[in-house]
Amino acid sequence: MHVDHGSPLGRWEARAELPLFAASLLFLASYAVRVLAPGLAPPWRDVCLAVTLALWALFVADYLVRWRLSGRRLGFVRTHWLDTVVLVLPLLRPVRVVRVYWAVQRRRDRPRLTLHARVITYAGLTAVLLGFSGALSVYHQEHAAPGATIRTFGDALWWTCSTLTTVGYGDVAPVTWAGRLIAVGMMGCGLALLGAVTGSFSAWLIQTFAREDEERPPAG
Amino acid sequence: MHVDHGSPLGRWEARAELPLFAASLLFLASYAVRVLAPGLAPPWRDVCLAVTLALWALFVADYLVRWRLSGRRLGFVRTHWLDTVVLVLPLLRPVRVVRVYWAVQRRRDRPRLTLHARVITYAGLTAVLLGFSGALSVYHQEHAAPGATIRTFGDALWWTCSTLTTVGYGDVAPVTWAGRLIAVGMMGCGLALLGAVTGSFSAWLIQTFAREDEERPPAG
Amino acid sequence: MHVDHGSPLGRWEARAELPLFAASLLFLASYAVRVLAPGLAPPWRDVCLAVTLALWALFVADYLVRWRLSGRRLGFVRTHWLDTVVLVLPLLRPVRVVRVYWAVQRRRDRPRLTLHARVITYAGLTAVLLGFSGALSVYHQEHAAPGATIRTFGDALWWTCSTLTTVGYGDVAPVTWAGRLIAVGMMGCGLALLGAVTGSFSAWLIQTFAREDEERPPAG
Amino acid sequence: MHVDHGSPLGRWEARAELPLFAASLLFLASYAVRVLAPGLAPPWRDVCLAVTLALWALFVADYLVRWRLSGRRLGFVRTHWLDTVVLVLPLLRPVRVVRVYWAVQRRRDRPRLTLHARVITYAGLTAVLLGFSGALSVYHQEHAAPGATIRTFGDALWWTCSTLTTVGYGDVAPVTWAGRLIAVGMMGCGLALLGAVTGSFSAWLIQTFAREDEERPPAG
Repeated sequence: MHVDHGSPLGRWEARAELPLFAASLLFLASYAVRVLAPGLAPPWRDVCLAVTLALWALFVADYLVRWRLSGRRLGFVRTHWLDTVVLVLPLLRPVRVVRVYWAVQRRRDRPRLTLHARVITYAGLTAVLLGFSGALSVYHQEHAAPGATIRTFGDALWWTCSTLTTVGYGDVAPVTWAGRLIAVGMMGCGLALLGAVTGSFSAWLIQTFAREDEERPPAG
Repeated sequence: MHVDHGSPLGRWEARAELPLFAASLLFLASYAVRVLAPGLAPPWRDVCLAVTLALWALFVADYLVRWRLSGRRLGFVRTHWLDTVVLVLPLLRPVRVVRVYWAVQRRRDRPRLTLHARVITYAGLTAVLLGFSGALSVYHQEHAAPGATIRTFGDALWWTCSTLTTVGYGDVAPVTWAGRLIAVGMMGCGLALLGAVTGSFSAWLIQTFAREDEERPPAG
Repeated sequence: MHVDHGSPLGRWEARAELPLFAASLLFLASYAVRVLAPGLAPPWRDVCLAVTLALWALFVADYLVRWRLSGRRLGFVRTHWLDTVVLVLPLLRPVRVVRVYWAVQRRRDRPRLTLHARVITYAGLTAVLLGFSGALSVYHQEHAAPGATIRTFGDALWWTCSTLTTVGYGDVAPVTWAGRLIAVGMMGCGLALLGAVTGSFSAWLIQTFAREDEERPPAG
Repeated sequence: MHVDHGSPLGRWEARAELPLFAASLLFLASYAVRVLAPGLAPPWRDVCLAVTLALWALFVADYLVRWRLSGRRLGFVRTHWLDTVVLVLPLLRPVRVVRVYWAVQRRRDRPRLTLHARVITYAGLTAVLLGFSGALSVYHQEHAAPGATIRTFGDALWWTCSTLTTVGYGDVAPVTWAGRLIAVGMMGCGLALLGAVTGSFSAWLIQTFAREDEERPPAG
């Protein structure tokens, strides 16, 4: 969180953050094309696969560079455990969106958003991007499974929305092991999203209470 | 939020708020009649349609007047994005109910409700009005779809309640694209409603804690 | 809330609270017997019905006495709207359990529970009693309906638990109008219960934070 | 909570906490083996049963020793009601994980985790361990029941996740009395888990707000 911008690691991270975020969006797009367009002509499929693998290699290279610049060994893996998870499962990279926000912020001189707006923006963006990744992966695992109820990508998106908001109709639901494993991760995200919305609202109300108490004349 | 009542824009808004809210309720009613009474005699159907379109034109006129009075161009659209959304989807106009409250409040001299009561009232009113709009739209999209489980307006209301409270039984659920799109919006409302209730309760508890701490004698 | 114990109304309420709570539990019990034991011998059924009606008459009498003692007219109905609701739907009387707590508290000299324990106790007791009333009513409406999934009282209790915690499996769900109307009320209770648990937890955490901040030495 | 480490009871608890936690994990494991491997050779089944019973006897012995050392009679049962529940239902022992944390903490000199990290860690660990116990018990009750939808242990785990996050798809759900009773307990855990996540988030946001207010220069 508190990055030292004078160190080589800090300078690398400040420079690499935005290109890497673009790369992770491209990764998501190339995965989406492969999953959603199975009838694509073979040469284009190969291009997609190549792009996916090349981007993954890029993520590995960035991780290694940062590991080297940090001058540490296992300690780096422990303190950067989220980066390690994200390296193994690149579809989760959008959770780093908060760092991108910081990188953008440093370049401009505009005042930062209020904590509130930041929490809501971050929770919203993360929910949208992770939801899209999750819907893709679940669709990939489920659409050809016997007895599946998630048969189109639309079903997967619908199921994702009902899961992330913890509504959970159950009219469509994953039936394979891999699909259910991804689903459990998304339920966790839904719980966190609910916590973010509720906590944020609660904090805003308490702040407004406190401000009203101050504004009120003491004699009133 | 902080309207300048001396400016032409502020005066217009203060005067137009209540009639426009009445117009939006009438809009909802005329839409409801068209959706719920398909067997209505053709002339009455035409009257309903005419009322709906006339009210929409009224909303457009109000938006244009305010845009003109503001003396701005695209900036107005950005700062009034909620008004723009509400212009395109007039069924969402009831979310402006909080402004109506302010307009009413300014005319009376009664002390305002506590923040708590206001949040609960606003959340409750918005939930009821948006829930009714949503149930109407979903029923409109679903009732004739093949394989639909939402076949009567009662089913739509029942489904709306289970969605807004995030219970989500799933015994009835939308199956069409349009219906599911509306449903996703309503899940978002449900999440916000849950946040409002929870946050409000939490803020009230914390305030009560603080007050009890003050009332307690320091030696106790 | 702030009852004046010197006034005739205050003295009446202080004395009548506990017997009326016992009466409302008895009301619940006699309703339960009628609903759950349809094969009861006719004389016993009549006794149950008589007890139910007599208790209802008692509640009406209490309401009228309080209305008279208050010396007001419509104002009493407005400020005591919860009492009015509870008069029309006596199965909801258990929500008055918080007043019983106060009545008991006044007689003892023991220190009151912390706000936390009180909120949790109140939310828990209300959830149990309202849940039981709701399960009874829903079972009463549903068990003989065509296509019903709630066929035994056990099903009704199971459905109640999944509704009050907002889990909402939907394996059993009401299908009649009356059953769904009661269900909507119970979803609202579930939302409030969730708000109470979450808000209470949040308030406790914030209080503990504040205390730890105070205990920590300033140099630390 | 506030254990006196000088008393015989305090010393016993400090020493016995970690071995007892290991024993409760072993209890869970031996129960899991018996439930999940019904085709185990009879001698191994007997070993499992013997281990289970021996560990239960150990828990009873620990309870009796602590009851004796406390020098009290029924008062001990009342103030240690959670221990009493956990004695009767040893699968719930993992809820004592917070005490294990304290016992470990006392031995090290490292600074304690922040309240936040502790709440999240405790909620997460409890959810995982109780969820596993619950999934085992529900699977045990359900897998051979007529009309059951929970037929494999995987189904039970999937159902557990959807229950603890209050999503509740309902594609699989318990149908026996015992299974539903356990399910109700798990819904309660889910509600508490939701409260912990939300409350924790809310408390963190409020703390961060307060800190930002302090850091901001007063003229700003």
